[in-house]
Amino acid sequence: MKLTTAVIALAAIAPVIAADLNLMPWPEHIAPGNGALLLNRSLSIGVQGGDERVERAVGRFVVQLRRQTGVSFDRQPGAEVTEIAITCAGSGAALQQLGEDESYHLLVDSRRAQLSAAGPLGVLRGLQTLLQLVRAGEHGWIVPAVTIDDRPRFAWRGLMIDVSRHFMPMDVILRNVDGMEAAKLNVLHLHLSDDQGFRVESLRYPKLQETGSDGLFYTRQQIGELIAYARDRGIRVVPEFDMPGHAASWFVGYPELASAPGPYQIIRAWSIHDPCMNPTLDETYEFLEGFIGEMAALFPDTYLHIGGDEVNGEQWKANGQIQTWMKDHAIKDDQALQAYFNQRIQAIIAKHGKRMEGWDEILDPALPKDILIQSWRGQKSLAEAARKGYDGLLSSGWYLDLMQPASTHYAVDPMDKESASLSDADAKHILGGEACEWSEYAVPENLDNRIWPRMGAIAERLWSPRGTRDIDSMYRRLDVFSRNLEWRGLRHRQNPRLMLQRLAGGGDVTHLATLASVLEPVKGYKREETNKYLQPTPLNRMVDAVSPESDVAREFNALASRAKRDKSARAQLIRNLQKWRDNHAQLRPMLDQSFLLRELIPVSEHLTAIANAGLRALQAMESGRPLAASARARQLAALDEAAKPQAELLIMIAPGVRTLIAQAGRR
Amino acid sequence: MKLTTAVIALAAIAPVIAADLNLMPWPEHIAPGNGALLLNRSLSIGVQGGDERVERAVGRFVVQLRRQTGVSFDRQPGAEVTEIAITCAGSGAALQQLGEDESYHLLVDSRRAQLSAAGPLGVLRGLQTLLQLVRAGEHGWIVPAVTIDDRPRFAWRGLMIDVSRHFMPMDVILRNVDGMEAAKLNVLHLHLSDDQGFRVESLRYPKLQETGSDGLFYTRQQIGELIAYARDRGIRVVPEFDMPGHAASWFVGYPELASAPGPYQIIRAWSIHDPCMNPTLDETYEFLEGFIGEMAALFPDTYLHIGGDEVNGEQWKANGQIQTWMKDHAIKDDQALQAYFNQRIQAIIAKHGKRMEGWDEILDPALPKDILIQSWRGQKSLAEAARKGYDGLLSSGWYLDLMQPASTHYAVDPMDKESASLSDADAKHILGGEACEWSEYAVPENLDNRIWPRMGAIAERLWSPRGTRDIDSMYRRLDVFSRNLEWRGLRHRQNPRLMLQRLAGGGDVTHLATLASVLEPVKGYKREETNKYLQPTPLNRMVDAVSPESDVAREFNALASRAKRDKSARAQLIRNLQKWRDNHAQLRPMLDQSFLLRELIPVSEHLTAIANAGLRALQAMESGRPLAASARARQLAALDEAAKPQAELLIMIAPGVRTLIAQAGRR
Repeated sequence: MKLTTAVIALAAIAPVIAADLNLMPWPEHIAPGNGALLLNRSLSIGVQGGDERVERAVGRFVVQLRRQTGVSFDRQPGAEVTEIAITCAGSGAALQQLGEDESYHLLVDSRRAQLSAAGPLGVLRGLQTLLQLVRAGEHGWIVPAVTIDDRPRFAWRGLMIDVSRHFMPMDVILRNVDGMEAAKLNVLHLHLSDDQGFRVESLRYPKLQETGSDGLFYTRQQIGELIAYARDRGIRVVPEFDMPGHAASWFVGYPELASAPGPYQIIRAWSIHDPCMNPTLDETYEFLEGFIGEMAALFPDTYLHIGGDEVNGEQWKANGQIQTWMKDHAIKDDQALQAYFNQRIQAIIAKHGKRMEGWDEILDPALPKDILIQSWRGQKSLAEAARKGYDGLLSSGWYLDLMQPASTHYAVDPMDKESASLSDADAKHILGGEACEWSEYAVPENLDNRIWPRMGAIAERLWSPRGTRDIDSMYRRLDVFSRNLEWRGLRHRQNPRLMLQRLAGGGDVTHLATLASVLEPVKGYKREETNKYLQPTPLNRMVDAVSPESDVAREFNALASRAKRDKSARAQLIRNLQKWRDNHAQLRPMLDQSFLLRELIPVSEHLTAIANAGLRALQAMESGRPLAASARARQLAALDEAAKPQAELLIMIAPGVRTLIAQAGRR
Repeated sequence: MKLTTAVIALAAIAPVIAADLNLMPWPEHIAPGNGALLLNRSLSIGVQGGDERVERAVGRFVVQLRRQTGVSFDRQPGAEVTEIAITCAGSGAALQQLGEDESYHLLVDSRRAQLSAAGPLGVLRGLQTLLQLVRAGEHGWIVPAVTIDDRPRFAWRGLMIDVSRHFMPMDVILRNVDGMEAAKLNVLHLHLSDDQGFRVESLRYPKLQETGSDGLFYTRQQIGELIAYARDRGIRVVPEFDMPGHAASWFVGYPELASAPGPYQIIRAWSIHDPCMNPTLDETYEFLEGFIGEMAALFPDTYLHIGGDEVNGEQWKANGQIQTWMKDHAIKDDQALQAYFNQRIQAIIAKHGKRMEGWDEILDPALPKDILIQSWRGQKSLAEAARKGYDGLLSSGWYLDLMQPASTHYAVDPMDKESASLSDADAKHILGGEACEWSEYAVPENLDNRIWPRMGAIAERLWSPRGTRDIDSMYRRLDVFSRNLEWRGLRHRQNPRLMLQRLAGGGDVTHLATLASVLEPVKGYKREETNKYLQPTPLNRMVDAVSPESDVAREFNALASRAKRDKSARAQLIRNLQKWRDNHAQLRPMLDQSFLLRELIPVSEHLTAIANAGLRALQAMESGRPLAASARARQLAALDEAAKPQAELLIMIAPGVRTLIAQAGRR
């Protein structure tokens, strides 16, 4: 693609651009121009080439532009001057392919915006960039002059949503697809079956959804509509049917598939359970042949994901027939038995013209090289697979349900660690990655808030050049990106607000919101350890309402690190800490009244304690009399106590206060 | 209906209840009981009698309960113990009738909730009350024990939405119907045609929508779906087709209907325009006969609204044929000509089995007594009509587009003023009223925020006993009512937030929100006077984003009245005023950058000036040295200047600061 103005690499122009443009993911090459294109309400958009996806994308572009601006932009037919000129060289593959060209070239000057791409996918990506460029200028809505040459670093940029543990209705999925389009993601991976629910209608085996779903499943028609909706947005849909483990919901209707006699019920508890398919019976494969045939036709994508994770082998060990069969067939252990199962499943999948995908555990040298490994284990696992010639995706480090900050996810790179030493040829096997949202602690109400406050950072890692790593810039742009998603109907900011209002009952939400603003849910698998959650357990507590990452605390902690040398920072820290110190007295009466709020009494008290510790440290700094070591130790001990998880919540300003105490000890 | 516990009239128990229950509209009779009903996740709801509306209402009740609580309540089939027992004595009219019984009896004790009603409408109303009673108690989700006997004061409790001047898509209408259900309103009146657009598909005269709507209209199918949706919620749908004036959009496709030769275009400007139907031609009535026949079949309600307002007669005066005809038929003036028109239209409407409704102007003694007058003029007009035997509805005082506070609307009563002197028999002609939202300055984005921050107060006036007039109680309950509407998908709080974010561009919205929180749009027809609005003019400025009523300012003003005698009030006033004084310095850089924000520079400066005046007054009070008369006069003059409308916005803390200055002058 030929550029009409000089293109400067990101690093060189970042200081100029970063202050000004809120693009996410950051493009491969960007060069600012002079002036800006002023958008007229009657907007002429010319389209050359492409397919019907391009036309529909232009329609969505205009709708989205209206939402973002509040101006009833109309697409002007047959205009002489084209303000937005789109050129699409090809019409793209009939079925969106892995690795299909997504590059685009965008040139904006004061007369027009020219967007050109090799195919529809590039146009889709470029239109999202264009939407991110639109802003209110001094004289109207403008697009600043700029030249962008852009294409993704990785071909597979996915989001997995677990719709089995908690079902997510189709409207929730569709609005998340809209978010994915904004983030230039291209694979939606649905975890459609697990012990806790089977979520797709099967005509051939209707008891799957009739008995295994509580009535909560997608009809075949809904799946077809989702696939068309996603295709329009440049997104492939990959279904996962977990087997041979994580399959109890199948056995409610078809107990004969299991390795122990039934009857079975849908499992309401989380964790790894025993029920497992019987890999030694031909009937199992006959069933799966029929099932896979039906699903291979319903889901057009090349890949079909069979899960394959976390088989504990308990049912196999306890089943004499299976043990005898294993001896007869010289299959030495559970792993070998699962490998045998996978080989037979792979053959079925291949027969239907598809490629098999699965988690790390499926990797076995007996399987052909066209399978795909999704790694929850990490780069080591990926690199080993790549060296053996297997394609891989990274998901380790990108489990959104573990409540890590965006910066942690942003630091993860599929090509780091063991992957870094791969040869160029082997490195090509690493196709990209997927963020995963497992839904033990997510329901339709808070799903968006589990995904979108951080997803932009992962999407950028997968799209943008490897060197795009400035965390401050990422957070600044993520904030705008996340906020603008609300114009697409995502509810990651609205629903938590409503959940807080619910907690506050009819009362004033102010003080509860102040508390919430510095809290985060406990990290990792801490909630799992409580053993108190079942599928119907309401997720309507503070831990379910707060954001995975507290912006307020992050900013406080950053400011705290400058306290010693920056008087105005200290003044602001004091204002914040006073507010937090005084919050409990205001909040306490509300907390007493509701069973949902009572668990927050110690949390709120601890916030006061932590704020007091911070204020004492700042007092010492202001007075110029450093805190003695013993006083520091006392305060840190008190801080440690107050910062312990309570009600599955963490008070996230604790690290900042720790910094203040440390600084208060220095001259 | 027999009560099982003593029923106490509102006034007697208000002090007990008002602190505790957030019901809106307030019920006719309510008596608190002891204890509460604890709701189990598996909820048994028994229904006896009623029709399919009752079953669907119970389904919606469960969905709404899930939303409000975050608990996946399930309706337990065939339970032995019934937690919610619904008894519906009759199945209701096939077509919802004006005056149909909406009363219900609700008895909640610690074992169950019993809801009984004469018909489905009563069950619908009672279920809304039940939803408002649910709260988080000390041990779980509860309904406090209570006995309620309730029925509406007026039979016609409506909301009119003007979908002509700015079209409102069907999803916007449907979510507003959901809000109406919560408010126990029972008539949705759609202003479907006007100079600026014709909004319903006609099969008989397709050029109406094809040329008169910019493609923005409801299909016949959508109308049918809306009517069914509204019926399910106990709401009648009354269509209005304005004639003979306000009809330019008809003439684009059918210029022969007009009193001056065409061609006509859709009119893009607001105000009263000349185009008017020709009442002297039989062809006009032939057309309208066909049209009304079609619409009478599409809209099943008994009433058909013909508008009839604001005919300026210009086209009639200028048309020789009309003038001659008037002389020939001894019709002395425009008013008489319109009366003639109305008589002929009424005959057509009656022929189709309907009753004619229209604005004040249609009232004419030649018309039969079964017509209905909707009064934008007031109680005098209503009382006169009632004395002549005509039914009437009040809308004067309830024009939501005029941006009056809820307290103003709450103070309006159809039976006040001239209506108060009506005989009991004549008073029965006053059927109720309708709030009107004319849409010159409303678009889908801010429609909800124009209606719902105040609509609860009007709904209460129309439903609750006449003595329900405590403004503080109303505001407290309205706040909760309005907040809970968000669980029904209304966007009166979410969209203004997004509009502010739009104004802030990528920047921090905090200081812009602080400014917005004390602003209101100018009142009455002030925006009209600017003459700068056309239909496509974007409504994306601060004036379009702020709420019709500033809660922050109302609370500040109330606090200010206590400043002299209340030290803690003064401390809080000072904190607020300091924040407002300092806001401009923080906000100014953002205001400079955008054409949308620049008009706010003087507004923001004036807020600082007003805050400074308030702070000086409070200083004087604190110091115990009263402000001299001359100083007071200077400050009041400065306040007057700063409080003038700017950018079509009012700074609503000015009255409170005025109070402070007055108090600062006293010893």
